[in-house]
Amino acid sequence: MKESQHPDTHIEARLRVRYAETDQMGMAYYANYLVWFEVGRAEYCRHRGLAYRDLERQHGIYLPVAEAYCRYITPARHDEEILVRTRLSRLRTRAMTFHYQILRASDETLLAEGHTTHIVLNATGRPRTLPPELARALKG
Amino acid sequence: MKESQHPDTHIEARLRVRYAETDQMGMAYYANYLVWFEVGRAEYCRHRGLAYRDLERQHGIYLPVAEAYCRYITPARHDEEILVRTRLSRLRTRAMTFHYQILRASDETLLAEGHTTHIVLNATGRPRTLPPELARALKG
Amino acid sequence: MKESQHPDTHIEARLRVRYAETDQMGMAYYANYLVWFEVGRAEYCRHRGLAYRDLERQHGIYLPVAEAYCRYITPARHDEEILVRTRLSRLRTRAMTFHYQILRASDETLLAEGHTTHIVLNATGRPRTLPPELARALKG
Amino acid sequence: MKESQHPDTHIEARLRVRYAETDQMGMAYYANYLVWFEVGRAEYCRHRGLAYRDLERQHGIYLPVAEAYCRYITPARHDEEILVRTRLSRLRTRAMTFHYQILRASDETLLAEGHTTHIVLNATGRPRTLPPELARALKG
Repeated sequence: MKESQHPDTHIEARLRVRYAETDQMGMAYYANYLVWFEVGRAEYCRHRGLAYRDLERQHGIYLPVAEAYCRYITPARHDEEILVRTRLSRLRTRAMTFHYQILRASDETLLAEGHTTHIVLNATGRPRTLPPELARALKG
Repeated sequence: MKESQHPDTHIEARLRVRYAETDQMGMAYYANYLVWFEVGRAEYCRHRGLAYRDLERQHGIYLPVAEAYCRYITPARHDEEILVRTRLSRLRTRAMTFHYQILRASDETLLAEGHTTHIVLNATGRPRTLPPELARALKG
Repeated sequence: MKESQHPDTHIEARLRVRYAETDQMGMAYYANYLVWFEVGRAEYCRHRGLAYRDLERQHGIYLPVAEAYCRYITPARHDEEILVRTRLSRLRTRAMTFHYQILRASDETLLAEGHTTHIVLNATGRPRTLPPELARALKG
Repeated sequence: MKESQHPDTHIEARLRVRYAETDQMGMAYYANYLVWFEVGRAEYCRHRGLAYRDLERQHGIYLPVAEAYCRYITPARHDEEILVRTRLSRLRTRAMTFHYQILRASDETLLAEGHTTHIVLNATGRPRTLPPELARALKG
């Protein structure tokens, strides 16, 4: 998986389409792309030195999704290797947006793309601001 | 579940949040709302006299998702009863859009809303037009 | 959904196979039967007057699965109505076993059957005994 | 991922627990272990030179699950790296059994173990025998 110093560059995660993720149309079921987005942003955070679980456990920071969008271009098939390219497209003190591209690894065909917007909450579910050191880390 | 003769009126499906659908934040995981959207549009089709499986088996019509959007307002919790209100907001010969509202059944609090756009394909994955009698049925 | 005063009688839940639950073999993916078992035991508890979420929230009792088994007999298909018949086959102070039958609702064909064994834990993940009043309620 | 010439040796797949796979107990939901078993046997087949999708597409062979069992020992947590060790424990002409161990990668703690038994079907869902060259390949 690639890492870059430039904040706009994407971080890449790699996964394989599971049989569980297919449906009877013979392609990956549409809700699973949002799961892959999650795999992508977990990888993004990890490459920025922030394990997502530490955000929750050590910092008491939760990032529930406020909005999700996906555009489906070409179906992903069972057993195909998939790349999830994630970049942080917007970072404010109380919200952030990630953009994702889902590609077939073999030929880098774009299969889908989308984004998720997250709000910053504390452990009791109240809005809070992202500590500056975490914001810096996320920007990379 | 309600049925209406007016094409703009929603069709209502009812489900209960499964433990499988929760995540460690203690709420329903965000991708599951897209599964609930599917439950909503299956119910919509059924109330219009079109079992979705018959669309595939008898008519050779597939409706893969081209675009999905969801806005998350209030978390759905385990074991809560949920209403999915679905209406067909746009119907063209080769594409259609459904709108969804996800509500907590007990107090009709709006938990999320969104839409999906579908294209019309035949069994070999090529675009086709929706037969007029099916279009009429879907409009209700 | 049926309720019975006799402890050995099953409690019945009803669900419909979701498109999300199918796989490219055109049948419900095998792991989903364990999700349906969960739907069955949630219904079982509810009919005994014990909402599963109250077990967790009010009583601080968690029932993680220690063992799961399923035998698959006839495939469940998309959009079919399914019955989940659940009975409590064994109840001890620190563990319990539920048995399940999955049937096609239209003709009561047995599609699958299995069981899950659960241990009783407190909120910090340590074994505890089930309070007698809850044991009585579960037995029905 | 390791490969071995000895038929009894396991093949190892590696994955990371997704947020989607957790539940509100803060651990991986029990049905997901069966999905991980599937990841394990896909890896097993791939290492034996048999992409599972080729079994279906080229050979017209389907391997639905007839029986699944899992024993849960220690919970898997979000973001943990998991090893799935898969071995083919029994191979007959019309059925086969895989055994699985799920381990935490960091310290090789055994988290769960189980098995699945599969029957051999053709594309129309009828029992067939496994061609000898595929049986040889699977045994490794």
